[in-house]
Amino acid sequence: MSPASNTLTCNLHFSITDGIGKLESCLAALKAMNVSLTRIESRPSKTSDSEYDFFIEFQAENQSQVVEVVESLKKHSTQVRVIGSGTAGQGETSVPWFPRKLSDLDSFAEKVLEMGEDLSADHPGAQDPVYRKRRTEIVQIAKTYRTGQPIPHVEYTQQEVETWGAVFRKLTAMFPDHACREHQHVFPLLVQNCGYNDKQVPQLEQVSNFLKDCTGFTLRPVMGLLTSRDFLNGLAFRVFHSTQYVRHHSHPLYTPEPDVCHELLGHVPLFANPDFAAFSQEIGLASLGATDADLEKLATIYWFTVEFGVCREGEHVRAYGAGLLSSFGELEYALTDKPERRPFDPSVTAVQKYPITQYQPVYFVAESFKDAQEKVRAFANQMERPFTVKYDPFTQSIEVLDSKEKVVKYAQNIRDDMRNLAMALEKLM
Amino acid sequence: MSPASNTLTCNLHFSITDGIGKLESCLAALKAMNVSLTRIESRPSKTSDSEYDFFIEFQAENQSQVVEVVESLKKHSTQVRVIGSGTAGQGETSVPWFPRKLSDLDSFAEKVLEMGEDLSADHPGAQDPVYRKRRTEIVQIAKTYRTGQPIPHVEYTQQEVETWGAVFRKLTAMFPDHACREHQHVFPLLVQNCGYNDKQVPQLEQVSNFLKDCTGFTLRPVMGLLTSRDFLNGLAFRVFHSTQYVRHHSHPLYTPEPDVCHELLGHVPLFANPDFAAFSQEIGLASLGATDADLEKLATIYWFTVEFGVCREGEHVRAYGAGLLSSFGELEYALTDKPERRPFDPSVTAVQKYPITQYQPVYFVAESFKDAQEKVRAFANQMERPFTVKYDPFTQSIEVLDSKEKVVKYAQNIRDDMRNLAMALEKLM
Amino acid sequence: MSPASNTLTCNLHFSITDGIGKLESCLAALKAMNVSLTRIESRPSKTSDSEYDFFIEFQAENQSQVVEVVESLKKHSTQVRVIGSGTAGQGETSVPWFPRKLSDLDSFAEKVLEMGEDLSADHPGAQDPVYRKRRTEIVQIAKTYRTGQPIPHVEYTQQEVETWGAVFRKLTAMFPDHACREHQHVFPLLVQNCGYNDKQVPQLEQVSNFLKDCTGFTLRPVMGLLTSRDFLNGLAFRVFHSTQYVRHHSHPLYTPEPDVCHELLGHVPLFANPDFAAFSQEIGLASLGATDADLEKLATIYWFTVEFGVCREGEHVRAYGAGLLSSFGELEYALTDKPERRPFDPSVTAVQKYPITQYQPVYFVAESFKDAQEKVRAFANQMERPFTVKYDPFTQSIEVLDSKEKVVKYAQNIRDDMRNLAMALEKLM
Amino acid sequence: MSPASNTLTCNLHFSITDGIGKLESCLAALKAMNVSLTRIESRPSKTSDSEYDFFIEFQAENQSQVVEVVESLKKHSTQVRVIGSGTAGQGETSVPWFPRKLSDLDSFAEKVLEMGEDLSADHPGAQDPVYRKRRTEIVQIAKTYRTGQPIPHVEYTQQEVETWGAVFRKLTAMFPDHACREHQHVFPLLVQNCGYNDKQVPQLEQVSNFLKDCTGFTLRPVMGLLTSRDFLNGLAFRVFHSTQYVRHHSHPLYTPEPDVCHELLGHVPLFANPDFAAFSQEIGLASLGATDADLEKLATIYWFTVEFGVCREGEHVRAYGAGLLSSFGELEYALTDKPERRPFDPSVTAVQKYPITQYQPVYFVAESFKDAQEKVRAFANQMERPFTVKYDPFTQSIEVLDSKEKVVKYAQNIRDDMRNLAMALEKLM
Repeated sequence: MSPASNTLTCNLHFSITDGIGKLESCLAALKAMNVSLTRIESRPSKTSDSEYDFFIEFQAENQSQVVEVVESLKKHSTQVRVIGSGTAGQGETSVPWFPRKLSDLDSFAEKVLEMGEDLSADHPGAQDPVYRKRRTEIVQIAKTYRTGQPIPHVEYTQQEVETWGAVFRKLTAMFPDHACREHQHVFPLLVQNCGYNDKQVPQLEQVSNFLKDCTGFTLRPVMGLLTSRDFLNGLAFRVFHSTQYVRHHSHPLYTPEPDVCHELLGHVPLFANPDFAAFSQEIGLASLGATDADLEKLATIYWFTVEFGVCREGEHVRAYGAGLLSSFGELEYALTDKPERRPFDPSVTAVQKYPITQYQPVYFVAESFKDAQEKVRAFANQMERPFTVKYDPFTQSIEVLDSKEKVVKYAQNIRDDMRNLAMALEKLM
Repeated sequence: MSPASNTLTCNLHFSITDGIGKLESCLAALKAMNVSLTRIESRPSKTSDSEYDFFIEFQAENQSQVVEVVESLKKHSTQVRVIGSGTAGQGETSVPWFPRKLSDLDSFAEKVLEMGEDLSADHPGAQDPVYRKRRTEIVQIAKTYRTGQPIPHVEYTQQEVETWGAVFRKLTAMFPDHACREHQHVFPLLVQNCGYNDKQVPQLEQVSNFLKDCTGFTLRPVMGLLTSRDFLNGLAFRVFHSTQYVRHHSHPLYTPEPDVCHELLGHVPLFANPDFAAFSQEIGLASLGATDADLEKLATIYWFTVEFGVCREGEHVRAYGAGLLSSFGELEYALTDKPERRPFDPSVTAVQKYPITQYQPVYFVAESFKDAQEKVRAFANQMERPFTVKYDPFTQSIEVLDSKEKVVKYAQNIRDDMRNLAMALEKLM
Repeated sequence: MSPASNTLTCNLHFSITDGIGKLESCLAALKAMNVSLTRIESRPSKTSDSEYDFFIEFQAENQSQVVEVVESLKKHSTQVRVIGSGTAGQGETSVPWFPRKLSDLDSFAEKVLEMGEDLSADHPGAQDPVYRKRRTEIVQIAKTYRTGQPIPHVEYTQQEVETWGAVFRKLTAMFPDHACREHQHVFPLLVQNCGYNDKQVPQLEQVSNFLKDCTGFTLRPVMGLLTSRDFLNGLAFRVFHSTQYVRHHSHPLYTPEPDVCHELLGHVPLFANPDFAAFSQEIGLASLGATDADLEKLATIYWFTVEFGVCREGEHVRAYGAGLLSSFGELEYALTDKPERRPFDPSVTAVQKYPITQYQPVYFVAESFKDAQEKVRAFANQMERPFTVKYDPFTQSIEVLDSKEKVVKYAQNIRDDMRNLAMALEKLM
Repeated sequence: MSPASNTLTCNLHFSITDGIGKLESCLAALKAMNVSLTRIESRPSKTSDSEYDFFIEFQAENQSQVVEVVESLKKHSTQVRVIGSGTAGQGETSVPWFPRKLSDLDSFAEKVLEMGEDLSADHPGAQDPVYRKRRTEIVQIAKTYRTGQPIPHVEYTQQEVETWGAVFRKLTAMFPDHACREHQHVFPLLVQNCGYNDKQVPQLEQVSNFLKDCTGFTLRPVMGLLTSRDFLNGLAFRVFHSTQYVRHHSHPLYTPEPDVCHELLGHVPLFANPDFAAFSQEIGLASLGATDADLEKLATIYWFTVEFGVCREGEHVRAYGAGLLSSFGELEYALTDKPERRPFDPSVTAVQKYPITQYQPVYFVAESFKDAQEKVRAFANQMERPFTVKYDPFTQSIEVLDSKEKVVKYAQNIRDDMRNLAMALEKLM
């Protein structure tokens, strides 16, 4: 792709103890290293009054240069704690690297498994050079998008709008009898606030702002398929990586991969629900630094819930998975008697095999999102991870609860919340 | 100022129960009213699965028209709950209006007590038309700034940079012996990350992003002095209203009102400290819907802490108030034996009289920010307010804990946090 | 049995609002009823400053008289809340009666399914009149025992001591390789503190006091088998109903029903473990007012844990169930490959059928008591019970969390604990 | 008094790590020491699965022998932690000894400042040999009373009953206008349940059982005045040391020291109130291991609350202190305009001087018990004590939160409570 492909992009987080000149000398040492520093951020520690946290990104020529940098930093201060490196699972720590700050997600921008522009042979648009050129244009937005920016507007073509419109009309006609209550509750709000209708493709920026107001979830444009790890890691920040391009016009009711119709009609309505948002973040938090084996289990759980989940509503079963809610055919099929339905149980669901290119033979039925969240949490707790994490929504960062100071702060915050709750209860009398 | 000055800008929040067509008919009713709707937002309720929340803003010709709209909405649905109106304290509710969403702060943009452009007679720049014209230019940014936008860059003049430089050099020389530990801990980070030095005036946008990373605080440009109520209400959202213009060059070490030197050197470093940030937000949350009498007390507490606070550090007393940390003369005076020093006790501090135009005769000494926070919280709890609030950092909105559903969600969140804490403690073993 | 068998013993709990003379007039009304009052206790409400709670016990001639009393009490005060009646599941409430105070357990004293004195045909002592007479003597203690009294000393005969000694020697030889770690940790303490050895049968009173010191559990003598409901209800108070007689001397290593060897060697050591104690109480709390169907599930869970539970210890499986730990033969068998072993999962375990008179074909393996406790709690939460309970160890009573006042108090207590925890964590630094 | 008066009674608590034979060898070492062991209890640690706790009591001839024993124990196991010794504040630890288990209070039985039998010169009964003999008889109960026993019945003489009756009639006539609401709420319950009337002196045992049901408080007979430390330490266990003898008949409305009239009419009603009980225990917990200076402050707070406290009730001020509620004269005086009344503020109250032999010139007014409890807790938190304690009502023991294991257990318990609370809130909907 680019000259950068010969180098490793590494992210290191470390801390040093406060002291006269410490900050400057550490910075000098960093600059003296024979690497290309692309980011240096120094921040006060959130928990210790006498520490600074560093977040650095650099281009290393090979893995041994990464080790060299780490060793050099360790010499610099006995307080250096290297949290992770860009090369997952190797060397310094046994915990795979994971994003700690919202802006760390920027490193995913070009790390797609399949580029939105490289279509597989069986893609309906694979032989359509115009369509492929158009995809390349649109994914350019995702490629250059960085945290904090508004998502650029896409001026969709008449053909794209018509494709969207066909999908929109077909699916909205099915929602009343097939979509879960939460989806139906939110959908009219998307019509009122985000321009959901069959005459235009809604803009990600507007939809993302709406979700932010509802649950703090935001959308982030993506070039194509991310690895499961990167994708789930994003959910830990309440960030959903969303495609922005439209499926091929030749098959408006079919697409072999996610497109903007799938995201907007399938995923978005659910992310406006507080319980579903918490459930999704729970999966994301569990994925941070998970082993490869655990990661696969979480990805499978994600598949059978966020993508293909169904839930009980009184006597009926309804769909809440986006893969169903955006697929005319499977949405109908899934609620018939043909497929098997089992109760959602993470330890069972996590090891269920599934096909990617055809209708699912098995669906897992959730009692409620709250219930599913509880179960996923209990499941995640059993995973072997030597640390516990917490998300700080104020600073949009992940805190690793690995010191007494951090645990004390956490306990104090819970105490303060508990006090506030008791007061609220007293006043409700 | 503008034609709008003849009308009332009103903000209403209300909720309706879900139901087929309910959303559309409510919207139709709103549009049919004889008022100019400038904002309509419908959102899913964060706590009830069967409700929608509305946030509307409209221009009313007079107060009776506001009452009319409220009555009309009430007819529309028995579930209408009007939370507040633009005309504080009158009519519908006895609770003064307060902002519920971050974007509600936009309504403060033009509501300044003293415009940055209208200088009082004794202002050093009052007779300087060039200076006054420059102020008018700069406050234009604050006037048109809206939530979510980056704060526009100001290209400071050579004269402005020199004024800033003089203040910067003078004060940074004093900080090591006069500023509190927390201020000194953060200051070098501002140098490294935000361009703090005597050669340039740092840009609010860059500083605001740094603070967001540290504690979630952000800066918001302001035209001039806000009312105490509006100013403190902003703190509830971890938003600090900051001026962007520079004091008059004729008196670099003196200014009768806040300017960007005061904000950047006095306030900013402290807002990067987690405990101070929580302390400031505590005052802000207490100010939401407070009675006028309570509001005055909170403003006085703010004065004696955030502006003129000193704290104990071992044997020494150090300054943490921005009014001291940005004033060469008073910073020196405050730490001598001349003024009186009393222990910080909110119930005492809240009723202390103080001069605005001369050095303070009395300072209150905090043991620590944590301690001060505890005390302010206990003080706030005694205030007569018929409801309890909580800030939701995910959606950057205020939740009024006035229903069982909300309290249940809160309890569930605390339970989940408690579970996470217990797990973290177990793993720390 | 006695003349009392023609009457119903009824326990009623109700509350009245404070007011001049209210207490006296309520008492007068009670006394005027045509029933034999055997207990009247009036207490201040634990949560409302303006209420009194009444606990009364009376002998009714039939069920319709109970209804009459309830109606009469209701007339007396609009505030009367009848919590339960001695006739489970009928009339007034759909919730079966359950004990609210420790002394309510006194009502179980004569309600045994099988009296300790009435032996079944296949009991080794069934044809031994001396043994049967001895049993009658010993169960007299249980029959007359009342809450708060010390458990009377039994002077065991030489034959009884020998029987006990044979069991003791045989089993203690097996414990090192078969009993779980927790059992082995406690056992030497019973030797040191409670006179566990093969020369004497330990006295329940001494053992009960030891357990009280360890976990707050106490023993209570029982005549024979209680109903599952009564037995599990006792666990809610951390009370274990224990037999006091010894199996028949002809078969020292066999008994078809619990005897004091089973209690002392099998149950007692585990009740000294805090996690196991909490686990057992959890089952007990879930049983209070449970439906018959749920009660059966809980009894089955009890069977497969407290009686026949095994747990994992590294590579080994060890016994923690008292039925195993007191049975030479089954203890050996259970840890071989012959029986089936499944992971403990309350929803599965709760519906497993089991034989009573032969070795179990299936055992359920717990990861740990903590883990089992978590799972039982989650299982219990799904049970359909219209209320939540909490145990107050100060007053040894059950609180039904059915009013806002009670919930507020509970929240305040948790807040206070949370404050204490945060302080403890701070000091641990 | 006895030969024991030449020796020191020492209590040691220490822990050893589990291990084969460890328990036996430790016991052997203890027995081999040249001291008279009067108690050895070994218990499983409540928090660590691999530790045992020992509680021993022995008679040492002098302080150096205590040191010797401690050193010897330390050699025995590296895990020995000596918590305190009978000789407060010296040697081993800087923390004064304090009771850890309920039965540790037995050591106070003979440690009275003034024996109930040794009357001061100005006591009305000082010259009455019959009265003094009677006192000696009654205090014999307290001298031999041990934890867990029922409090022996005192057959009061006709003269004693008449004295009590005179006090009873006089004070009950004043309660409606002078006693606080909580006192008045409970008093009729004492009449109904504990035989409060002017014809008999209520028995401590019956009253203690009533209190146990209400709040878990119990009475314990005492020979006379305890030291402040011992007395307050008792409150940590919700134990109130109560005299059992009656004042001299010559002055029924006056007594220079506590007597059973003071306890029963002044103290008892309040201990039946949950908030007051928690408040009193709070003082008790703060007193455990407090420095002498802090202890004096707590004793002063006790004086101005539990003994001489008044509280606001709407427009009125009412008495809740037992010293007032049992003194005809001062009860009247205290609510007039003569004395000074100040708001209750522990930091002020704690250093207020007071006379013992005359009416108080100053009273402190509490807003409520809850409020007073909050304030006392905040005050206690500021005291310099290197550890935090928690009371375990199940085992009636004090836990010192000095290890991570203990803090983890505590956090888990709070988490479980929080879960239960959330569930209760959900069901209340």
